[in-house]
Amino acid sequence: MGAAAQLPKHVNIVEVGPRDGLQNERVRLTVAQKVRLVDDLTAAGIRDIEVGSFVHPKWIPQMADTAAVFDSIRRDPDVNYWALVPNMRGLESALASTVSHVAVFLSSSETHNMRNINRTIAESTEIIREVVDAARSEGCTVRGYISTVFGCPYEGDVDFDRVLSIGASLLDMGVSQLSIGDTTGMGTPLQVRDGCARAIEEFGTEALALHLHDTRGLALANALMALEVGVTVLDASIGGMGGCPYAPGASGNVGTEDVVNMLDASGVETGIDIAALLRISRQLELDCGATLNSRYYRYSQAGAV
Amino acid sequence: MGAAAQLPKHVNIVEVGPRDGLQNERVRLTVAQKVRLVDDLTAAGIRDIEVGSFVHPKWIPQMADTAAVFDSIRRDPDVNYWALVPNMRGLESALASTVSHVAVFLSSSETHNMRNINRTIAESTEIIREVVDAARSEGCTVRGYISTVFGCPYEGDVDFDRVLSIGASLLDMGVSQLSIGDTTGMGTPLQVRDGCARAIEEFGTEALALHLHDTRGLALANALMALEVGVTVLDASIGGMGGCPYAPGASGNVGTEDVVNMLDASGVETGIDIAALLRISRQLELDCGATLNSRYYRYSQAGAV
Repeated sequence: MGAAAQLPKHVNIVEVGPRDGLQNERVRLTVAQKVRLVDDLTAAGIRDIEVGSFVHPKWIPQMADTAAVFDSIRRDPDVNYWALVPNMRGLESALASTVSHVAVFLSSSETHNMRNINRTIAESTEIIREVVDAARSEGCTVRGYISTVFGCPYEGDVDFDRVLSIGASLLDMGVSQLSIGDTTGMGTPLQVRDGCARAIEEFGTEALALHLHDTRGLALANALMALEVGVTVLDASIGGMGGCPYAPGASGNVGTEDVVNMLDASGVETGIDIAALLRISRQLELDCGATLNSRYYRYSQAGAV
Repeated sequence: MGAAAQLPKHVNIVEVGPRDGLQNERVRLTVAQKVRLVDDLTAAGIRDIEVGSFVHPKWIPQMADTAAVFDSIRRDPDVNYWALVPNMRGLESALASTVSHVAVFLSSSETHNMRNINRTIAESTEIIREVVDAARSEGCTVRGYISTVFGCPYEGDVDFDRVLSIGASLLDMGVSQLSIGDTTGMGTPLQVRDGCARAIEEFGTEALALHLHDTRGLALANALMALEVGVTVLDASIGGMGGCPYAPGASGNVGTEDVVNMLDASGVETGIDIAALLRISRQLELDCGATLNSRYYRYSQAGAV
């Protein structure tokens, strides 16, 4: 039924666990535990790590210590350490922590954007424009998250033309990579394949990352479809930590172990040591006192790896 | 990166939960509970159900009541009710229960076959030949399971040529469909795609079913790859019940809800009511007092469906 599609030779993993993951876990880690987590991820071979966010602690108390974490991590010159910034104030805090890689974010659904950050998409876009300008003038690289691109828990279907239009405006501002997010795991394989193919056609492979959640168990199938059409950057969260507190029913970023295992098994290079990832998840379970949901991690804990 | 492959319009699900699933759960269901399970699966729109096995109760005590289950289920004329039979004695019991669809089985790994049924592959083949002859002369349709086709926990890699050779001999005997099994979930997406493509080339689409386990979380990704090369029959187990007691580290047939959800989401028809499947899994959890692992079922139980 058609020629077999090829997978890319190399895929880059953007580890979002320390921010997107931990932010949505009930337990809090200490600064020392977070520093160890980031240092261990660096040692495991991850080349992009989202360390934290500079968001008002009233909104995300779990991230209140991001500056302290940035102060103490061992910064490998080959690794990009990212911070999420919602506005100019956040950017200023990031710059004070000598952060050189910042991420901005908005939703492709008006309702989700309003519920998540209490602004219209147009209002978010203007704030992001100001942040990107200032960040670039300070020499920062900027990543742009667009969420709910394959479905919104409030609005249902999201018009992918709107995703492409938001993406184009972010790239015009000087954002270097878009991360399009299936924020509540509503995406389906053919939808993800088609959306990613369109985004790559518009923006090119280098400019696109895919951010998947495993809410309904489809994350790896969706990832595989994206790889088939040329996606080469995947966001993932160690142990499958995280979800979205503003999206009912959402839980679980796709686990880094799950993605790396599938890529390893498919002959796609990541440069990441999966055994090291499993040790990190085990440490996280001890630190959090919680059970992590990554499928491959759970398999490993059954004594099989 | 190559043209996008098409998925089939319709996929047939062979529900193996009442046999392969329950056989490997610690808890026992009563005959009445099993009958309800099979009747509910029939009502949900499943068209092939593996009801039980006629195996010596010393080996599989969970299946000792298969005759009683067959006696009491409501047999829909549009549904095939399968029984697994290991030998002539099993076949005789099946025939005595007016079973018209029987399944035979062997492994593509010598070591796995020896540990599972204490025979060489050649010995199993001769016994199967006798069973298939007798079954066909009584008007039965016969299905043939070949296990460990994408990897054996004892031997590691399995030569797919051996799988094809065993498959050819089963079809020569008069088996109408082969179910090739990733018994311990060792299969990887490209491996499954290539194996299924080769099997379809040898035997045709109609003769092939794929039996997946979600041990490492790859079952849906593997299923998707199989669909892309034309596989149209998938085995699945309600709630993700089951594993293989003779295969260390193995757990979890792919969940029927997970497969049906992915197919529904991809526009592939199954004729199955997924809401009914979720109700069946909920009843099974109550009957078993156990937690089922199907991803989509767990998602539904988070209050999201």
